[in-house]
Formats: sequence, C-alpha cells, structure tokens
Amino acid sequence: MDIADMAKRIAAGERRALARAITLVESGRADHRAQATELLATLGTGREALRIGLSGTPGVGKSTFIESFGKMLTADGKRVAVLAVDPSSARSGGSILGDKTRMDELARDPNAFIRPSPSQTHLGGVARRTREAVALCEAAGFDVVLIETVGVGQSETVVAQMSDLFLLLLAPAGGDELQGVKRGIMEMADLIVINKADGDLKATAVRTQADYAGALRLLRKRAQDPDGYPRAMTVSALENRGLPEAWDALQELAGWRRAHGFWEATRAGQARYWFEETVKAALLAQLETPQARADLAALSQAVAEGTREPTSAARDFVQALGKSAAQSG
Amino acid sequence: MDIADMAKRIAAGERRALARAITLVESGRADHRAQATELLATLGTGREALRIGLSGTPGVGKSTFIESFGKMLTADGKRVAVLAVDPSSARSGGSILGDKTRMDELARDPNAFIRPSPSQTHLGGVARRTREAVALCEAAGFDVVLIETVGVGQSETVVAQMSDLFLLLLAPAGGDELQGVKRGIMEMADLIVINKADGDLKATAVRTQADYAGALRLLRKRAQDPDGYPRAMTVSALENRGLPEAWDALQELAGWRRAHGFWEATRAGQARYWFEETVKAALLAQLETPQARADLAALSQAVAEGTREPTSAARDFVQALGKSAAQSG
Repeated sequence: MDIADMAKRIAAGERRALARAITLVESGRADHRAQATELLATLGTGREALRIGLSGTPGVGKSTFIESFGKMLTADGKRVAVLAVDPSSARSGGSILGDKTRMDELARDPNAFIRPSPSQTHLGGVARRTREAVALCEAAGFDVVLIETVGVGQSETVVAQMSDLFLLLLAPAGGDELQGVKRGIMEMADLIVINKADGDLKATAVRTQADYAGALRLLRKRAQDPDGYPRAMTVSALENRGLPEAWDALQELAGWRRAHGFWEATRAGQARYWFEETVKAALLAQLETPQARADLAALSQAVAEGTREPTSAARDFVQALGKSAAQSG
Repeated sequence: MDIADMAKRIAAGERRALARAITLVESGRADHRAQATELLATLGTGREALRIGLSGTPGVGKSTFIESFGKMLTADGKRVAVLAVDPSSARSGGSILGDKTRMDELARDPNAFIRPSPSQTHLGGVARRTREAVALCEAAGFDVVLIETVGVGQSETVVAQMSDLFLLLLAPAGGDELQGVKRGIMEMADLIVINKADGDLKATAVRTQADYAGALRLLRKRAQDPDGYPRAMTVSALENRGLPEAWDALQELAGWRRAHGFWEATRAGQARYWFEETVKAALLAQLETPQARADLAALSQAVAEGTREPTSAARDFVQALGKSAAQSG
C-alpha cells in the first residue's frame, strides 16, 4: 500500500481513500497498524473540523436527528462525517450505525460520510480507533464530524474526550423520568436537545426542556461556558424544526470558547490524553504476539498450579520479553 | 538486606520480619521492588491460610466485629492477620486500619497481626501490594487472613479476587434501606452478617436478616455453593454473640468447596489473575523511570501544541523506550 498516495487522496477529499484508511486504523494486524501510524503521521494535524459528540439512548430518535441535522448542514454546503463509538461492539462485534438505511438520505449525500463503530474487544480499543478516524476525517477536509454514542456513562466519557462540543439528545418525558439521566452525563453536556417536540408530545417536550433547563442551572458553573450555557432546547427532527437554532447554539458556544482560549486548551488536553493512552496500549500490545501469548499461557498455567509464585513469575516474563524485543529489534 | 535471612525469619513467624517485608512490598522504589520479588520467590507458595474478605460501610461496627471475631480465633489458638484495601488511600494517602486503637486488644494480641492499607496512587496498586502482603502472611504461618475493605464496589471486587470467602457486614436497617446494597456486592457475598443484633436494634436485626435471606434466595444459584449458601445471619460483636456460628458457617462452606474442587479452582484462577495484572503493571512501570517521564512529558507537550501527531508520537516513544531498555539491559 502506497501511504503517500493514500494521504494525498484523503487530503483531496476522496471518500474511497478515506474509507480504506479507516479500515486500516481499525485493523488489529501489526503491519496494518504500522501503515496506519505512518498515514496519520503523514497527514499531520493541520486541518480542523468541528467535532460534535452526540449521545442518546435508543428511542430518542437519534438516527432521525442525525439525518435531519446532517442534511441541513450539507444543504448549507458543509461536509459532514458521522462516526460512532458503540460500547456493545466491544463485546458482541455488533455495531450501531451498521445499518446505513437508518439514515438513507444522508448516506447517499455526496457531502456526507457515514461510518459504523469499529468492533474491537475493548471499549478503549473502539475509542482509540474512532479518535484516529476523526483525525482522518479532519484531514479529508470535513467541516463537521458527528461522533455518535449510546451508553451508560463510559462511552460518553471517551466520546467527550474526542469532541469539541457534547450534545445530549433526549425524548420528552414525565418529571419522574428526569432522574434517568446520570448526573455525570448531564455534567458533560454542552447542549441538551429534547427531540420529538411534535404532535402529541409537543407539550411534554416543552415541559421536559424546562425541567432540564432548571436542572442545568443547579450544576456547578464551568469555566468554559458563557452565560446561558449549557442550554436545553426542543427540536423536532421529524418536522425539521429547531435544528437551525441548535446549530446556532453550537456555533455560538464554539466561537466563545475559541475567543477565550478554552477551545485550544481542550484540544491540547485531549491530544495529550490520546497520546498517553496510545503509549499504554502499545506497551500492552507486546503481550499480543504469538510468542508472548504462548509464554504467558505457560507461565500462567504454572502459577495456577502453584509451582510458580505470581510476582516473580511476572518479573521473569517481563525480563524475557525485553530480551526477545532487544534481539528482534 | 539479606533476603534469604528475612525469608527464614518470616517462615519462623517473626512478626518484625513480616512487618518489614510488607513495608518492602509496599515500596515504590525499584530496588525495593526487586528485593520484594526475590523474597516472594524465595518464600514460594507452600503455606495456605484461610483468606476471608470482609466488607462493610462505616457505621456497621466493622472494627468491633474484627476485634471480637479475631479474639475468638486467637483464643482458640489460631494466628490471625488483618490487612486492608482502602480505596480512599489511593487518592488521599489516608488509610483505614491506620489507627490500631480501633482494635486495641487484638492489636496487642501476640497471635494477631494488624496492618493498615498501603497508600498508593491507584486502587490497582493498593490491591497488588495487599495481595502480596497476604502471601507474606501465609508464608509466616497465619491460619486466618482477614482482608478488610470499605467501598462502593470496585474495592470489593479486588478483595474478592484475593479471598477464599467473602463476608458482607451490615447494620440492622428498615426495608427501604435494603436497596442500598448494590446487587454486585450481594452477589459476591458468601455470608451476610447483620451486626448489632443487640439492645434496641435486636428485633430490627432479625427482620433485616430475614430480608437479606429472602434476597439471597432470589439470586442466581452459584456452582460453588452447597445448599443453604450464601447465608444471612445475625451477630452481636459487642456482646460476643453469633460469632462462633459465623465461624462455623465459614468453615462449613470452606470444607465443602475444598471437597468439591472449587477451592483449588478459585485459587488457581486468582493466581492467574494476579500474575497477569502484575505483568501489565510491570510493562506500564517502564513509564515511571526519570528518563521515560522526561521523554513522555516532552512529546506530550509537542502533541498538545499540535507539532506532533499523537499516534505516531506514541509509536516513536515506545520504540525509543525499547532501544534504551536494550542498551541498559
């Protein structure tokens, strides 16, 4: 694979090259990993998209929202990528966004690019690959990258670590159900959007919005927010109402943060975080070679049988690993 | 330090040598770590104590229970060690059991050994050190090792990974408060002990015991339990009532598991687990040398400033780390 050529095609915005590159970063093969790393290094960090994290439990109309919101942006001439971090894919290999027919109009839009969640064995692996896919989308010149997730906290945390803005999508609900949103997720949100503010649910949506606006006012003020943020608002993705207002709010917030230094500081902290996570993952990847796996299994068996003491067995294993790396390097 | 001599003294049951050895395993210094590892290797895995994990939130009378329970065992000629895993020590450096006056009679008992939780920066570090301290207590010929914790789930999980039996200590409570115990912790328990079954609280304690007995019956049957387990019972640590019955139950359960192969299987699985955790910790410890810290900080700064791309910076760092290890090794 010609990495320099692939980088050029990505920088020119070729969707097929981008799709192939994302497949490369998602691969677990060592040679693919080396190529993916080379590609990321070649592309560098010059271009920036607006990265929007988006969380919502099943049933809030997330696909409809992304389709309507994405189409509004592409109609305005913007290029929009949609990626996903699916915590369940770490277990089952299944993925949200796997079925592009959920957003079939956006999927056919030449200015949009939709990619399902990578399936990896750990949420950490899913997250690291998605962060790299975001970097590829930025290098490909996308203006907006939406990073979708659905989870119970952990996946929101990792998506927030790769997003400039975090949007929490909710459905209209009675007062008691307000408790269903974990405080930690509320605290991450820059914008809470109550979807389905249409038909019979409209009045409930307005009440829900008021409830969350009240709840947001009770949270501790964050330095990175101007007055009036985080905000709660209503939209109807189905009827295309409220979407321009949501976009305006996101842009206003982004502009304020850029002007006040929070934007750069957040990006710098995130870059540090992913660098350090990637270092740790690379160190632990030494355990994944066939030789290391075999040695680990043999010693693990001796430890289980009580013929080896665990701590000193671990020392011996790590020393042997260092020596074999030195010989092969 | 003469490790062979220290090992001999520990095997002879010398408490001062044991205390010094635990200080050694708790140390973060690389030379101490090497000595501690050598010591653990020398002592091997021959002797076994009954390891009892013990969890209870503040206010359930945990110290009083450990003191009364421990004294009952030492009066019966048994040697008892008490260790602790304190999740808060990972943050604050503070520790439960730090104040031995909480159990002053047991602390003065020549057949008892009490040791506070190590203070480390990660719960994982606290847990690994405590697991090694348990191994030292076993090598020193203790019959029973009590591993105390207080937490909200995570510390119970690590204590369960180094215990043969897990005892959950609770206070008498009304029906509504039953919900306060997380399901995951309930599922870990082999024995639920309602303390303070004395005075005004006696009737409440009996009702609480019945509630938990009912709740335990609703849990999924575990292969490692004979009929009637896990059990809920009442004790009064203050009035020394119910403690022999609790001990009998623990012994009955332990005997059944030994006879049916679950004892060995659990120990084997735990040994594997700690071996693998120690391997991972040893790999990540490569980041803790002064040189590695300095290199990591410099690259992290370049990544934060956007002059380096995170994934390829991580690759370069790990490659350099491997080379410097090869040269120094």
